[in-house]
Amino acid sequence: MAQQHRAQLTRHSILVAAAAEIDEVGYEAARLSAILRRCGITKGAFYFHFSGKHEVAHALVERYRENLDELSNRWYQRAQNPLATMVGLTCDAARRLEDDVLLRAGLFLACNHVGTDTDGWEFLFDDLVRRAADRGLLRPGLDPAAAARVCYAMVVGTNLLVGGDLQRLGVRLEEAWQVLLPGLMVGGAREAVAAG
Amino acid sequence: MAQQHRAQLTRHSILVAAAAEIDEVGYEAARLSAILRRCGITKGAFYFHFSGKHEVAHALVERYRENLDELSNRWYQRAQNPLATMVGLTCDAARRLEDDVLLRAGLFLACNHVGTDTDGWEFLFDDLVRRAADRGLLRPGLDPAAAARVCYAMVVGTNLLVGGDLQRLGVRLEEAWQVLLPGLMVGGAREAVAAG
Repeated sequence: MAQQHRAQLTRHSILVAAAAEIDEVGYEAARLSAILRRCGITKGAFYFHFSGKHEVAHALVERYRENLDELSNRWYQRAQNPLATMVGLTCDAARRLEDDVLLRAGLFLACNHVGTDTDGWEFLFDDLVRRAADRGLLRPGLDPAAAARVCYAMVVGTNLLVGGDLQRLGVRLEEAWQVLLPGLMVGGAREAVAAG
Repeated sequence: MAQQHRAQLTRHSILVAAAAEIDEVGYEAARLSAILRRCGITKGAFYFHFSGKHEVAHALVERYRENLDELSNRWYQRAQNPLATMVGLTCDAARRLEDDVLLRAGLFLACNHVGTDTDGWEFLFDDLVRRAADRGLLRPGLDPAAAARVCYAMVVGTNLLVGGDLQRLGVRLEEAWQVLLPGLMVGGAREAVAAG
């Protein structure tokens, strides 16, 4: 049991070291030797857990996706206005990215299509905007699919433009939703999101 | 004179070949040997015009910036609603990028901060949204600087998400402006942009 626990700790140290290295230099430039140096683990111990850098990357992406699923489930269960869910979920995710290098590396890898073909957000925006449309919250004539694409593009662009400054990402996202959302909603829905 | 004309043609062939190579594989991976193979020019002839790949990249960025200046000047001179100028300018730029590999490479380099620290668009969005605010076109309470950042982020995100499919970029930008702009404007301004 103690041995199993030690193995889990070693695996976690490798993930943290790989995430920190990827966060700093990117995936292509991240070298196995640098990752091992960061966590002080031998090559032999590394290969007991992973077949190579690629498998570590897949594990980071999987962890990121699980975390996003867990986070979005929690926000969905609050059963508030779907647009308020969208705001809360994205700003919460930005805060977590700021604090957690494992998530940052996972998102970076997902955006660069390592181990997955999606960062998981396109579906969420599409789903939440459609739910808002079903509840009659969108202004007349607005195409929900197009509105969802604009929300997604805004978040992707904002993330790119802050250039890794995750603290600024949270502030900029809140600001952007204040600009963007009132224009997507019918008048009566605005107060609901402000209150949500 | 004929010799000068031939030199200009050679210089242009090098720029086109470098742009095509950068467009295909990116700046870091673009090799001088591959560029020379594309345009069938000797190393000696190349070094008559440029000191290296870096100087070619700077020339491509400069050409891109000149082209953007010329294009934006033309749209500004139409003296229409500044928000209609923003829509027209971005969609026109997307069409030009689709047709012109030199511009595509120039924008790619500018976005990756080769030879410049800006792609030139941040200033344009900020200026045009402020002009709209000065004319009383924005909805009350909207911060022009924040609105300009959202427009910029939306365009950057849309460009990233079409993944080099420039034909789709034009379509997606038109769609995005239809979603985004009505929410930024006071009621009376909407028809003006639609008519612009």
